[in-house]
Amino acid sequence: MCVRIKAYMNQNNSNILKQKNIGNIADLKDGDKFSGIVKIMKKWQPGPVIFTVSDGYGMVDAVIKDSKFDTGDIIEILGYANERAQKLQIEIEKIREAKIDFDLIVDKNSEPKNTSFTITSGRLEKLRPYFNSIAKRIRKAILENQPIMIRHHADSDGINAGLAIEYSCSLLMEKIGANPSYNLYRSPSKAPYYEIMDAFKDIVLIKKIIEGHGQKKPLIIVLDNGSTKEDIFGLRTMKSFGLEVIVVDHHNPGDVINKKTAVDPYLSFHLNPYIEGLDSQLCAGMLAYELAKWICEDYSNPSLPAVAGITDRSNIEEAEEYIKKSGRTKKELEEIGIAIDFIAYQLKFGSGKGLYEELYINPELVKIINEEVRKGVKNQLESTLPYLRTYNISGITLSTIDLEKYTMKFKYPTPGKVVGMIHDIVVIDRESLPVITIGYLADMIIIRANKPVLPVDQIIKRIRKDIPNAQAEGGGHECAGAIKFIPAHLNDVMENIKNQAKELNYEKEDKQEIC
Amino acid sequence: MCVRIKAYMNQNNSNILKQKNIGNIADLKDGDKFSGIVKIMKKWQPGPVIFTVSDGYGMVDAVIKDSKFDTGDIIEILGYANERAQKLQIEIEKIREAKIDFDLIVDKNSEPKNTSFTITSGRLEKLRPYFNSIAKRIRKAILENQPIMIRHHADSDGINAGLAIEYSCSLLMEKIGANPSYNLYRSPSKAPYYEIMDAFKDIVLIKKIIEGHGQKKPLIIVLDNGSTKEDIFGLRTMKSFGLEVIVVDHHNPGDVINKKTAVDPYLSFHLNPYIEGLDSQLCAGMLAYELAKWICEDYSNPSLPAVAGITDRSNIEEAEEYIKKSGRTKKELEEIGIAIDFIAYQLKFGSGKGLYEELYINPELVKIINEEVRKGVKNQLESTLPYLRTYNISGITLSTIDLEKYTMKFKYPTPGKVVGMIHDIVVIDRESLPVITIGYLADMIIIRANKPVLPVDQIIKRIRKDIPNAQAEGGGHECAGAIKFIPAHLNDVMENIKNQAKELNYEKEDKQEIC
Amino acid sequence: MCVRIKAYMNQNNSNILKQKNIGNIADLKDGDKFSGIVKIMKKWQPGPVIFTVSDGYGMVDAVIKDSKFDTGDIIEILGYANERAQKLQIEIEKIREAKIDFDLIVDKNSEPKNTSFTITSGRLEKLRPYFNSIAKRIRKAILENQPIMIRHHADSDGINAGLAIEYSCSLLMEKIGANPSYNLYRSPSKAPYYEIMDAFKDIVLIKKIIEGHGQKKPLIIVLDNGSTKEDIFGLRTMKSFGLEVIVVDHHNPGDVINKKTAVDPYLSFHLNPYIEGLDSQLCAGMLAYELAKWICEDYSNPSLPAVAGITDRSNIEEAEEYIKKSGRTKKELEEIGIAIDFIAYQLKFGSGKGLYEELYINPELVKIINEEVRKGVKNQLESTLPYLRTYNISGITLSTIDLEKYTMKFKYPTPGKVVGMIHDIVVIDRESLPVITIGYLADMIIIRANKPVLPVDQIIKRIRKDIPNAQAEGGGHECAGAIKFIPAHLNDVMENIKNQAKELNYEKEDKQEIC
Repeated sequence: MCVRIKAYMNQNNSNILKQKNIGNIADLKDGDKFSGIVKIMKKWQPGPVIFTVSDGYGMVDAVIKDSKFDTGDIIEILGYANERAQKLQIEIEKIREAKIDFDLIVDKNSEPKNTSFTITSGRLEKLRPYFNSIAKRIRKAILENQPIMIRHHADSDGINAGLAIEYSCSLLMEKIGANPSYNLYRSPSKAPYYEIMDAFKDIVLIKKIIEGHGQKKPLIIVLDNGSTKEDIFGLRTMKSFGLEVIVVDHHNPGDVINKKTAVDPYLSFHLNPYIEGLDSQLCAGMLAYELAKWICEDYSNPSLPAVAGITDRSNIEEAEEYIKKSGRTKKELEEIGIAIDFIAYQLKFGSGKGLYEELYINPELVKIINEEVRKGVKNQLESTLPYLRTYNISGITLSTIDLEKYTMKFKYPTPGKVVGMIHDIVVIDRESLPVITIGYLADMIIIRANKPVLPVDQIIKRIRKDIPNAQAEGGGHECAGAIKFIPAHLNDVMENIKNQAKELNYEKEDKQEIC
Repeated sequence: MCVRIKAYMNQNNSNILKQKNIGNIADLKDGDKFSGIVKIMKKWQPGPVIFTVSDGYGMVDAVIKDSKFDTGDIIEILGYANERAQKLQIEIEKIREAKIDFDLIVDKNSEPKNTSFTITSGRLEKLRPYFNSIAKRIRKAILENQPIMIRHHADSDGINAGLAIEYSCSLLMEKIGANPSYNLYRSPSKAPYYEIMDAFKDIVLIKKIIEGHGQKKPLIIVLDNGSTKEDIFGLRTMKSFGLEVIVVDHHNPGDVINKKTAVDPYLSFHLNPYIEGLDSQLCAGMLAYELAKWICEDYSNPSLPAVAGITDRSNIEEAEEYIKKSGRTKKELEEIGIAIDFIAYQLKFGSGKGLYEELYINPELVKIINEEVRKGVKNQLESTLPYLRTYNISGITLSTIDLEKYTMKFKYPTPGKVVGMIHDIVVIDRESLPVITIGYLADMIIIRANKPVLPVDQIIKRIRKDIPNAQAEGGGHECAGAIKFIPAHLNDVMENIKNQAKELNYEKEDKQEIC
Repeated sequence: MCVRIKAYMNQNNSNILKQKNIGNIADLKDGDKFSGIVKIMKKWQPGPVIFTVSDGYGMVDAVIKDSKFDTGDIIEILGYANERAQKLQIEIEKIREAKIDFDLIVDKNSEPKNTSFTITSGRLEKLRPYFNSIAKRIRKAILENQPIMIRHHADSDGINAGLAIEYSCSLLMEKIGANPSYNLYRSPSKAPYYEIMDAFKDIVLIKKIIEGHGQKKPLIIVLDNGSTKEDIFGLRTMKSFGLEVIVVDHHNPGDVINKKTAVDPYLSFHLNPYIEGLDSQLCAGMLAYELAKWICEDYSNPSLPAVAGITDRSNIEEAEEYIKKSGRTKKELEEIGIAIDFIAYQLKFGSGKGLYEELYINPELVKIINEEVRKGVKNQLESTLPYLRTYNISGITLSTIDLEKYTMKFKYPTPGKVVGMIHDIVVIDRESLPVITIGYLADMIIIRANKPVLPVDQIIKRIRKDIPNAQAEGGGHECAGAIKFIPAHLNDVMENIKNQAKELNYEKEDKQEIC
């Protein structure tokens, strides 16, 4: 407000002669004459009245000595734009009430200006209606000065999704004269779902924003999380506070009935490829990147969806297309993804604002981090591989490793990643056979497989039946997942899984290969 | 300060004609003429001089072009109140030194306006002098613009106590024109005492407030913590910084000699029912609620002391009275308490500002959380009960459970609460017999009993004697508590407790029933 | 900026008559006339133009209605200084471009004013050139309004080093009119090196400072950390962001070739006694204290290097000299150091701003903390000593203790300190013989020795050779250190060390005594 008053005091506008009549705020320049209908978004008090007004797209401050009009009023004003340095404002000369359906204007301007995808994809076309309604909703929030609060999974896919939406929203805000510093928030969720702890923290922050700064209730956008039954608790909680949540995710939402999932009652919009009969291969980073281009057509970072696809092991043609479009090699993109995952591990709950972005423009940083990660990988493999136990169970190669004993704690790569790396090595020269690799901790096992002979959800279901006291829970894809349980039952759980493999009688089964 | 100068600049006060002579600041309105004696609380510099003045109750800004008077001076001023929007200030026309004992005025205004309790209670009446002096002290701090810093135990009782004091202080601040944002702080202590870590953090914050914002040393209020010997380290530390601490607690302070406890040398005031020969049944939430009504008579939330009483298992008639007065069912109140405990568990060191309050007005949120907690309780019971070992030791039913093996880590309810729930189940149909339930972790045991046959303090004393190397420490009530020790001695500690039970020869003893 | 505009508005300067002509900003007083050449450090906009100008030493705000000059321009101005309250500014009457080599002026003012050490020391004299160039660089950063960001090890030596540099920089900033609140940052590193997590956090903060407040890239100063190979990852990362880092450390940097170490490629300056053939006995607190006196000659706290020396067990004559100069007893100084270590343990990642300083002026606080630490030491010794196993291995006394079983977790003193205390007791009456004490946790052993018969680096090298799968890593001095390894190999590692001791055949060796 201090800035505003100074500009107001400065009456001798040297540009007053080169004035032009301008009707839309976004194009307004110093010395232009503006006349048009606007909505008051905010009235700053006390002192000479300063309104933040919007013509349904652009936002600008407009000053007048005194006025009875208030936030929410639709008014017609006439005055000269006055710029000192970067900051523009209109000095109101005439002001009067306006009768107009202002919502109609906002609604029209909320329509995405770009509605094409960056690649040709039948999968994306199938999801077009979701892109349209979600992009419009987010643009509308920005035009109406509603804050945007982004929560995303804290892995490469989720972080890339978060960055894409953050940057496109930021660009649109700047275009229309809104300030991203007060209107845009982004934080990671360490869990692979919208955890209740995160929801509670978000609510505390929202209360602070609303009460402290007099802002509107933010629009919540959950990315690469939000679709599964684990998300219900957090989403329900947000809804009970009257908050609107949009989810863009690619994880399996479970049953889809009439295009509705279990989390839909708590969302205004839900974009998930499974809802349209697709799978998880269009990952969150890809979906969010395309959405970002619809939110603000100026946004672009073609490497981003490629990195997301590689780190989430997407192998559909869209993934290849993104890699091609990125203008980088697959190795370069992969190394950016590895660096993102490493930084996320180090920062824990920090958003890493300004740090992840650097990876796309600072190859030296990517190189430094990858060198270090490679050392860690080498160490973890050297310390675990000699102690890997490998069984041939009726044709299935099942390997187990005690992660508690054979890995170092609080070291990157994490136990989960170590199991993946071990698995990739076990699979070598066994590509045609089913290989399952299991790492176990005191109360958790991590599973990786190259073929979906024993899907993780099926393993859990069976353990819950055979060893109910183990309270097994968890989940994952067909060929990767994690199971948590009561520590006392570790041995029983391990034996049970081996039995499940045995019962498959795989050697006698039809061979199929998918993972 | 920017706001102030704008108001100052705005000389054409359109309300100047409807002026009234007013002598007290709190009742001052736009256009009124004020004349009276005030104290300068703060002098804002540089620029036109802006004083924050107080007449010993209300506070307001008063502006003048220049002045030699300074913070702390008592002056007589005359001028017109000028309001734009919400902010009022006096434009000083006449100013001169005033000779008056200003402290006397503040002292008089510090007397609580409400001095009755919300329920009829002999116990509360016994504590009346404490309420009077503490309410007066806190009111005085607020009238003198001294910040208030609240620390409270992070369970339902402590959080409720914290909310009651926070809200009543906030109300009084707003009434007199002080800004709670800069004058009121509240944080939880995870430990059941005023931990040294919390004390250090408080000091760092206090240094920042004083040096950064030029504020006075705050008045520290410790709630539902502060009375025990574990609190001494933290309280002594605060005193060494010249900080004043008030404690309102209901935990057993140990020896009370001439109404003095071991922590009293470090406190200005200490409200604890034990000091007057009572016990812990008047819990902190009840005490703080009544105190809050004395601090600011406008404050009210009749459900709050009822929730505190239920979650702290108070079964005196006062607890019943509060439930009756709340206008809610016991179940509704209990569920609010469960939700508070659950949120506290999730937020860890966060104050949860704005979140706990919601539970009293948003039944849907209470319901969502309770549903989830019930699921967690069911899981934890199912995974532990089959492994509970129950012994009959000369008439005492003693049950033990290995919490390390049979509970899931970082899951709610916590191991401590799980022991309580198991105990409640073991007691069923054994109400008339002594039942002791013990959960053990690697370096800690948690004890619950239905009769005080083997008080926790007595158990610890004996272990310290028999197994000094175990370094046993801890505490609790007669029928609930926790003992920490060196991990190597877990088995010895467990055997020792069984022996202690055996030696009681309970079957031959007189039967008494209390817990 | 609000403050500035108010001062600008206040045109009636009552001191206008007593004006003096003054040529340097730092000596400027209210009412003086200033004329001289200055550089614009910052241009505040919009409103009447306010420049923050520097004459190459002092900084002040200068206001003018409008101006085409911009940040970085060298200008000649004439105007009157105008003070209201503490804040001074020049009201520019004349302004014009100036042609002058401004860098030369800054360079000259950057030369340290004090260039003598507080004690007579051949060791310090050997390092004189480093003091000169580093002090000059830091002074230059301050004169050019570049922020300073200090990272230091979180023990007594590192914290004292951090305090010394923080306070001297702060003093110089205040002298020249810069604001330490926006220009000076200090944080602890929990690891004994500049961890990558800390580097990432620093970058996020730096991005925020630069983008949010428009500040320059800060100068990074790493204290009591930064010299070892473990620091390379963090330092390289900072360099890849174009950040300049200075290291002042006393830990062994490994090979020094042509006065260059492995970290030098990533630093602008590196002060480490090893580079000049000295050892670690001139600890970081001593080096930083002397450097602080060169940065700002007004800075002084003679107890600080003495405390650092005692807590880092420095026994060179310089350490004695500092103790003498401190005016305190060795016991007083030692207790301050113990209190610093205790507070650092409690605060974890907090900088403890305002808290550590207090220990030098509040003996009561030092006493309270030491009493509590003594209790903790007593407990830890009582619980461990009975279970210490002591072997005589060919003349070497080797003692081992299982810290996992016999110490309490999350209690002060930490396991590492406990091993040191046990060792000091074992050594009593065995001073002339080699004594090695080893404490072990699941994945780590901590070693202390009284003679360098078996240096920690040598132990690690041998374990890496004999048990490569253990992935042993770590380090330390000749007689103290820690080794981390894969948990599964604990027993092998312990046996291996005993064998290493055996192979020494110490009884037949020449006896030497050093540690």
